[in-house]
Amino acid sequence: MKRPKILAFDIFGTVVDWHGSIWREAEAMMPGVDGNRFASAWRAGYKPAMDEVRSGQRGWTKIDDLHRIILDRILKDFGIDLDESSRHQLNRAWHRLAPWPDTVAGMLRLKSHFTLTTLSNGNLGLLANMAKHAGLPWDLILSAEVFRHYKPDPETYLGVAEVFEVSPNEVMLVAAHEDDLDAASVCGLQTAFIQREDEYGPNVRIIHGDLTRFSYAARDLVDLAEQLGA
Amino acid sequence: MKRPKILAFDIFGTVVDWHGSIWREAEAMMPGVDGNRFASAWRAGYKPAMDEVRSGQRGWTKIDDLHRIILDRILKDFGIDLDESSRHQLNRAWHRLAPWPDTVAGMLRLKSHFTLTTLSNGNLGLLANMAKHAGLPWDLILSAEVFRHYKPDPETYLGVAEVFEVSPNEVMLVAAHEDDLDAASVCGLQTAFIQREDEYGPNVRIIHGDLTRFSYAARDLVDLAEQLGA
Repeated sequence: MKRPKILAFDIFGTVVDWHGSIWREAEAMMPGVDGNRFASAWRAGYKPAMDEVRSGQRGWTKIDDLHRIILDRILKDFGIDLDESSRHQLNRAWHRLAPWPDTVAGMLRLKSHFTLTTLSNGNLGLLANMAKHAGLPWDLILSAEVFRHYKPDPETYLGVAEVFEVSPNEVMLVAAHEDDLDAASVCGLQTAFIQREDEYGPNVRIIHGDLTRFSYAARDLVDLAEQLGA
Repeated sequence: MKRPKILAFDIFGTVVDWHGSIWREAEAMMPGVDGNRFASAWRAGYKPAMDEVRSGQRGWTKIDDLHRIILDRILKDFGIDLDESSRHQLNRAWHRLAPWPDTVAGMLRLKSHFTLTTLSNGNLGLLANMAKHAGLPWDLILSAEVFRHYKPDPETYLGVAEVFEVSPNEVMLVAAHEDDLDAASVCGLQTAFIQREDEYGPNVRIIHGDLTRFSYAARDLVDLAEQLGA
């Protein structure tokens, strides 16, 4: 197996703790709300909304706008009344997600040996604001917004290789989600699984498949750097 | 005048010294060649090639490929025979352009007060490799490649505002070229002119128009940071 040149990172869950961050922001803005349940409900609307775009049922819509559509719906479900400016501010919580404790240290080690890019369904503005807020030292920010395709469409994984003019197996997807990694693998990318047992909060236990099918499986980004000799 | 939130930087000439860098790489690879003249000839093909894309005469083509088309032509004009691998390596010199002496220091000061993005006709891979090579601390790399329009098409200037969901006058274009700044101004962006008297090498003297029409005019990026209180 050739050493990859480009590491392409999934973001939500892999690099940042969306569940804990949204939980905190939801409870800070709406006292009395169960932030844990609210965060899960918000994220649960994510895949169906993207699938509407992927299937062509909905025209190209960026995640900020999909998040807002879902937010309006779950506020109704939770019976919460929020004014426009608070809704806007809460929706921007996705721009302020906190990194996992190992994220920045792991990235800094990896960055001196590889080119680090995002490959996220998050839009460019969201990813840039998040990077500035959390101090994530990307070499490049790539998004579904650039390719006008959401993961797991092959255009996204192959798009990274095209941007850097390398072959797909010189790119490695780094992600905490097996379906994302499997789709990348079908496109010829290398794969690094990152274990994020707390991604969905304290009430959700994740059942994994056989992780040996991935090029690497690591406890966190520092462990991945260690395994890659970075 | 509102303080801008986003500074969008032109790259070739404004942030990096393309002429000096190409001159050096051309002479290193092809002893006996006049690197000064070679750099000028290569760059002279740039605007006509982009205009072919802008007018629709040529389909979308990224700068790496336009640079290579021009390179093949000027090698012929200069009567130079170069093998494929050397041509590829020389074409990649545009990924290794050196920053001006003030660039990194100025950017670091500006970065703590503003969001810094590229807005270049260079492609994403080129800009990411350049940033890694030269240590340019961008918050985001935006390119004509994202908008599928080359500057000075309005889609590029307005695209920056759309990505960050701000109004055009909250974006300031930072550039050494008056035509680029004038086109941005028409779109409602603020403008910062950077004086780069050596951009085209020692034999070219630049005649400027009235610089007071720009929001700022600065000697270099450190001077711009000074004027912006950064």
